[in-house]
Amino acid sequence: MSKTLRVGVIGAGRIGKLHANNLATRVPNVELAAVSDVYEPAAKELAEKLNIPKYYSDYHKILEDPKIDAVFICSSTDTHSPISMEAAKAGKHIFCEKPIDHDLDKIRAVLEEVKKAGVKYQVGFNRRFDRNFKHVHDVVASGGIGDVHIVKVTSRDPEAPPLSYVKVSGGIFVDMTIHDFDMVRYLSGSEVEEVSAFGTCLVNPEIAEAGDVDTCIITLKFANGALGVIDNSRQAVYGYDQRIEVFGSKGCITADNETPNNTTLYTADAVSKEKPLWFFLERYNDAFITEECSFVESCLNDTDTVVGAFDGLQPVLIAIAAKESCEKGGIPVKVMK
Amino acid sequence: MSKTLRVGVIGAGRIGKLHANNLATRVPNVELAAVSDVYEPAAKELAEKLNIPKYYSDYHKILEDPKIDAVFICSSTDTHSPISMEAAKAGKHIFCEKPIDHDLDKIRAVLEEVKKAGVKYQVGFNRRFDRNFKHVHDVVASGGIGDVHIVKVTSRDPEAPPLSYVKVSGGIFVDMTIHDFDMVRYLSGSEVEEVSAFGTCLVNPEIAEAGDVDTCIITLKFANGALGVIDNSRQAVYGYDQRIEVFGSKGCITADNETPNNTTLYTADAVSKEKPLWFFLERYNDAFITEECSFVESCLNDTDTVVGAFDGLQPVLIAIAAKESCEKGGIPVKVMK
Amino acid sequence: MSKTLRVGVIGAGRIGKLHANNLATRVPNVELAAVSDVYEPAAKELAEKLNIPKYYSDYHKILEDPKIDAVFICSSTDTHSPISMEAAKAGKHIFCEKPIDHDLDKIRAVLEEVKKAGVKYQVGFNRRFDRNFKHVHDVVASGGIGDVHIVKVTSRDPEAPPLSYVKVSGGIFVDMTIHDFDMVRYLSGSEVEEVSAFGTCLVNPEIAEAGDVDTCIITLKFANGALGVIDNSRQAVYGYDQRIEVFGSKGCITADNETPNNTTLYTADAVSKEKPLWFFLERYNDAFITEECSFVESCLNDTDTVVGAFDGLQPVLIAIAAKESCEKGGIPVKVMK
Amino acid sequence: MSKTLRVGVIGAGRIGKLHANNLATRVPNVELAAVSDVYEPAAKELAEKLNIPKYYSDYHKILEDPKIDAVFICSSTDTHSPISMEAAKAGKHIFCEKPIDHDLDKIRAVLEEVKKAGVKYQVGFNRRFDRNFKHVHDVVASGGIGDVHIVKVTSRDPEAPPLSYVKVSGGIFVDMTIHDFDMVRYLSGSEVEEVSAFGTCLVNPEIAEAGDVDTCIITLKFANGALGVIDNSRQAVYGYDQRIEVFGSKGCITADNETPNNTTLYTADAVSKEKPLWFFLERYNDAFITEECSFVESCLNDTDTVVGAFDGLQPVLIAIAAKESCEKGGIPVKVMK
Repeated sequence: MSKTLRVGVIGAGRIGKLHANNLATRVPNVELAAVSDVYEPAAKELAEKLNIPKYYSDYHKILEDPKIDAVFICSSTDTHSPISMEAAKAGKHIFCEKPIDHDLDKIRAVLEEVKKAGVKYQVGFNRRFDRNFKHVHDVVASGGIGDVHIVKVTSRDPEAPPLSYVKVSGGIFVDMTIHDFDMVRYLSGSEVEEVSAFGTCLVNPEIAEAGDVDTCIITLKFANGALGVIDNSRQAVYGYDQRIEVFGSKGCITADNETPNNTTLYTADAVSKEKPLWFFLERYNDAFITEECSFVESCLNDTDTVVGAFDGLQPVLIAIAAKESCEKGGIPVKVMK
Repeated sequence: MSKTLRVGVIGAGRIGKLHANNLATRVPNVELAAVSDVYEPAAKELAEKLNIPKYYSDYHKILEDPKIDAVFICSSTDTHSPISMEAAKAGKHIFCEKPIDHDLDKIRAVLEEVKKAGVKYQVGFNRRFDRNFKHVHDVVASGGIGDVHIVKVTSRDPEAPPLSYVKVSGGIFVDMTIHDFDMVRYLSGSEVEEVSAFGTCLVNPEIAEAGDVDTCIITLKFANGALGVIDNSRQAVYGYDQRIEVFGSKGCITADNETPNNTTLYTADAVSKEKPLWFFLERYNDAFITEECSFVESCLNDTDTVVGAFDGLQPVLIAIAAKESCEKGGIPVKVMK
Repeated sequence: MSKTLRVGVIGAGRIGKLHANNLATRVPNVELAAVSDVYEPAAKELAEKLNIPKYYSDYHKILEDPKIDAVFICSSTDTHSPISMEAAKAGKHIFCEKPIDHDLDKIRAVLEEVKKAGVKYQVGFNRRFDRNFKHVHDVVASGGIGDVHIVKVTSRDPEAPPLSYVKVSGGIFVDMTIHDFDMVRYLSGSEVEEVSAFGTCLVNPEIAEAGDVDTCIITLKFANGALGVIDNSRQAVYGYDQRIEVFGSKGCITADNETPNNTTLYTADAVSKEKPLWFFLERYNDAFITEECSFVESCLNDTDTVVGAFDGLQPVLIAIAAKESCEKGGIPVKVMK
Repeated sequence: MSKTLRVGVIGAGRIGKLHANNLATRVPNVELAAVSDVYEPAAKELAEKLNIPKYYSDYHKILEDPKIDAVFICSSTDTHSPISMEAAKAGKHIFCEKPIDHDLDKIRAVLEEVKKAGVKYQVGFNRRFDRNFKHVHDVVASGGIGDVHIVKVTSRDPEAPPLSYVKVSGGIFVDMTIHDFDMVRYLSGSEVEEVSAFGTCLVNPEIAEAGDVDTCIITLKFANGALGVIDNSRQAVYGYDQRIEVFGSKGCITADNETPNNTTLYTADAVSKEKPLWFFLERYNDAFITEECSFVESCLNDTDTVVGAFDGLQPVLIAIAAKESCEKGGIPVKVMK
């Protein structure tokens, strides 16, 4: 492997652009070799903006290019697992946006293929690379709060997505909470064995009509005996609310929201601080760059990725259990193994 | 009714002393007329310390004294409901420590008797009078965060009680969480309809042997559609952790712990703040005084008590449902009406 | 001396009422024996409210009462030193509101008389008893931040006093900053040797016409080599701003404002916290009680008062130097010894 | 002017490397065309690392290159003004590290030459681009706190520089406080007219032997009537302490330190937060990038630089006055115009 990783980006939508832009300007030891999008003008526009030498409508051209070492799969969710399969067979290292798939068999097939091909595989759980959450993880992992007793995640979006999106999202658990399911695994250092989910529709009744919920609380039991709880809302009017807390036998550690700045304004009306950064593009901006750097380093140095294919499977299993529990009114459901 | 409320204190243990001392030194318009304790020397000692003119081993002497307007029932839990019954029949206003009883029929009998007698009845849910929690309640009640979507309570004791206490406590839900059940009713402005509880023993395995849990997470559904969650631990090594959060359609409000002071120390090792006040006597010191003042005012001005007999019943109903859910592994259980 | 301190209160204005009320209801081991005020109805009203057995228009009646152990001098500033002289001669312990006098010779005469009489003397620098500031002091005094390098005091009133008050106040340095001069002595553990003061009128031009300033910054040199700075304003529209910071060779410690509660409100408009408590009656409520208790204990146990007569003299000396420096445009002025 | 700014970097030491690295990887629309250093191997190493096509030991080669649009002057302080003169004559836009010079005549000559040549000139006061300080500035400038009454700057380094550096630094006022002098101008929106400085040596007595101070407090009077105060220390053991506060007729705004993350750790020992970021490379990392982007935009779009040549002169004038005041024991000294 050369000292520079040659990367092809598959999908030039919002998240594809984000990764391509970071890879071009912020991540060292990367050469953007090609970009593809089913809508070719999108690929062309991105290629021209970032001086990417080649662009295609067909991603196979990227997979067939022997000079390309790795791919970023940023296409629509339903294509994640088939492209992962093909990319693995083509011997490319793979960064795949979450979720790998909604279908467990397809995810498992990807895991197997990746293992067989011996390529690197990283799933886009970017929050693990957030400086706050990573610090909490590191303190917990190093025993700083003793044994883990309770893991808490607050995760609320600033505004509900369009109804058209909700309808094809697979539901809140697989679409939104999946990040939190990954986070509780990351923080607890243990697997989730059972979940109970209470969900309801308080933000927008049309979401209920679409068969989904917009407000929910999920309680979790971990293999190591700890308990966990996640609370979600599709709409926090004050911005993206992303906080965590891990409580243990020797203490507790919390991570607060990030804000645009650290100022405080005192007036006759109030003492006010900045609201949380608006949404994931702002809040997790640095986390995206760090996850990209991490993937590139794993490929170049032949080390394990921080978030592997197995880490892509587990949150989907938890989401499936949570969805079932929620539909059954909160009856605890065991997570498949 | 005279302008001064003549009070008899029944029970001269820790909580009886606390109330008597506050009534003697901090609460206006009160005259401490008598104190009783089954162990007469305790009553005598308290009477002498606070210049209370009379002390007895038999509380009936207090109930029979026509000059006494009100009683504080601070005796052991099993005596709360029978003394409440007798005191109501004797026409005394009643301040009763929580819980009224573990037996629902006995609580309901008290409710009926209190109603019949037309006396004031206040249950010792002192946290409602905490300046932080009351402010959160007031903001929520005045619509400051819109419709309530999620209520969160973190409630952790600094150290587990002795095993001997655990064994007769009735279990964590009725002993400890009962305060939190009152709090979620207070904050949400709605009744709890259904609960799911995950409990486990992580602090002390002997608590499990005694048939109880020491760590738990309880999810709640409210009549107004909101969801709630409480997390408890019997042992937070950094002190009494008492925080709340109410999230709604127009915002969110949180209350943080109280600390001994507002200082911050910066050294080469760390930036450190004070730990939370150690336990309820420190944290809720002012809240106890405020609740006592509130009761005295209700009696003197013939107004409703802030925490009535019905408010004593509801948390017990929720606790019973939570206990059942926990024992059944988290299956949601409806709260009796 | 009996185990109860019999106190006479001289002056039934705002501060006299405050002390009398606390002594009657919050300070143990005190008996309020008499109150006097040149305007007798004020003395009468206070006596009746607090069940004080005697009231006078002439304070000599208090000094002549052999059953009275101590006096609180809460009368107008110009009477502080003469009454202190008489009270010392009469063998009464003395709590005197600040300042003892504006005239150095009179203060020194009080010091001498107090020493001769062997009575306790405490000056009303209540801020030393604030839980935050006392904690900072204690940490500094115990070496927690090493050698003191810089002491900073921010002290801003919520609103300027009436012009009529300003005219007779003796100027901002002796009226307002005098508390801060005491604070820097308390925190640094050292005497002020030299000051430089920049003052100006930015709040109300009429204050300038009255020969005073309403905004100022005073820099100080301490005998131990440390530096200090105080900034004052007569009007902080967001409330009473009282913060301190001590920086040293091994760290730094800060004390923040006190607020009505610890809540945070998140809305679409802002994230807001409570404003500082409005003024000294709210902010230093507990500090007043603690200083009264401290005085009573010093009298009953024959221990030194925390703020003695010498501590009443020093801030006046600093104020005189600061006033001179300010009038001379900031030229450093040495503090008289 | 082309759409890309071709830049030559003069000086490949610590700050030259920092700017070159940012320009190469983080600042859009820039082409690094050449680098020079009197020690050619340093220039060569940087050129190779960042793929800069040309490197020299003689900066004149850069000034003579007609394809180069702008220079970053990152060489030793004594060369700032002569190179600025030559660069202006050569028609290059100029980014110059602070200070332009210690000699006022030389700075004024640069101002004149820059004006004559019509080139852009920006001085490296990077703190204006810090997100916190910029927000404070913007709120103040937009009237958010009304008229400015008091400006406060706390600025403390984490550790004293080597004595060898101190000896040639020109003294603390021109070396360290100069950033704060720029900051108070930026925040107050007004010029400093007079200063009084108290300085002492508490960190390292050898600094006193070298004729300098390591701890100081500087009071300032602004043309608009406001007052200001800066406190400096060469050694804050807990890290780089950089805080500001602006107080006005309608409120107050503060900016706190930046920390590595927003976590809080609760243990039996303490509640601790992260220490401030260690030093300027960490704290002002983003500010450097923003100032570079700002300069590039000014050059490409022909707009005024945010920190012009005049802004390079003023802090030196204030520093000279502060030094004189400090040497004279704090006597107020007027700033030259």
